[in-house]
Amino acid sequence: MPDTNLAPTTALDDAALDRLFRKARTANAWQDRPVTDETLRQLYELTILGPTSANQLPGRFVFVRTPEAKEKLLTTVSSGNQEKTRTAPVTAIIAFDPQFYEHLPRLFPHADAKSWFTGNAAFAERSAFLNSTLQAGYLILAARSLGLDAGPMGGFDSKKTDELFLAETGWKSTMLINLGYGDHSKTFGRLPRLGFDEAALLA
Amino acid sequence: MPDTNLAPTTALDDAALDRLFRKARTANAWQDRPVTDETLRQLYELTILGPTSANQLPGRFVFVRTPEAKEKLLTTVSSGNQEKTRTAPVTAIIAFDPQFYEHLPRLFPHADAKSWFTGNAAFAERSAFLNSTLQAGYLILAARSLGLDAGPMGGFDSKKTDELFLAETGWKSTMLINLGYGDHSKTFGRLPRLGFDEAALLA
Repeated sequence: MPDTNLAPTTALDDAALDRLFRKARTANAWQDRPVTDETLRQLYELTILGPTSANQLPGRFVFVRTPEAKEKLLTTVSSGNQEKTRTAPVTAIIAFDPQFYEHLPRLFPHADAKSWFTGNAAFAERSAFLNSTLQAGYLILAARSLGLDAGPMGGFDSKKTDELFLAETGWKSTMLINLGYGDHSKTFGRLPRLGFDEAALLA
Repeated sequence: MPDTNLAPTTALDDAALDRLFRKARTANAWQDRPVTDETLRQLYELTILGPTSANQLPGRFVFVRTPEAKEKLLTTVSSGNQEKTRTAPVTAIIAFDPQFYEHLPRLFPHADAKSWFTGNAAFAERSAFLNSTLQAGYLILAARSLGLDAGPMGGFDSKKTDELFLAETGWKSTMLINLGYGDHSKTFGRLPRLGFDEAALLA
């Protein structure tokens, strides 16, 4: 009998591939349709399942959705990202916890993974940056999986964001992702992509 | 009339969410079933559609699948990752091109984005590292979308990998991802995850 605790081995259908990749687009404008906290919790529960190195799970997520918090966040956002961030139902601050390894005795109990990072802040921070960015990729595709649209952004002042939102936790922000239901009448044309032979090698 | 060039706005069904997230697992052993170059090209075509900041697309991908190339790669892989890498039909080297910005006049034609990076190697490298790691996240979920299993790994010597595989291109490796059809009889139990209240905030 197949183990039903494991993933089905078939590829997704065309509609799912379209939703995730082929017809999915970064949203720049939004429908007047809220994103509930329940949906944000579903989004988190999918995102957190994606793999990270030694189950480090360094990614941290601040879901900014009240007008007061949004106003505060807008003081850190570049001019080109203002309007879409102001109007997005939610903006997620993607961050990492530089002390993520304190959780490893629970998250990765079969090895002393915490000791790989204690006293090696530069190594720990690189690992946290890499793995939390993987988790940002999972979050973008988890959002699309739930019928949401995402608008990832690099144009913001991460230091100021840390001061305003993360001072108590010590987390470090790396990017912002607007979340909502996109107004596709305002989606830009798809930009060109690099061909396989420009960005990949077979060895 | 709805624009059929844009993504359907519905959430994926349970089977798709299972395949991508809820029942998906990192593979540690593999079925004796090849991954064709055609499948690797499909994987690339999905991966490259994921969003990157200003369409930078810094990610580069070396698909190692011949015995000779695999032997060479194994000289860079940590002992704990040897067997699963040796037996994987394909191991993808995830890398970035530090000179990615040379393509921006074509990839992001409506602004002089190339000038943001020229003469600022540290800023360019951080952006390439972040965005190519997002692309690695897309690749892992694109693999799952195509019915493949993925096994991402950090335990390898990136400097030696660069010398052996990337000397001609100047690309820089950041992680490895085994690809194939997993032998789920050998999948480990799911490790714990952080709860919403440990890794997320509502603001």
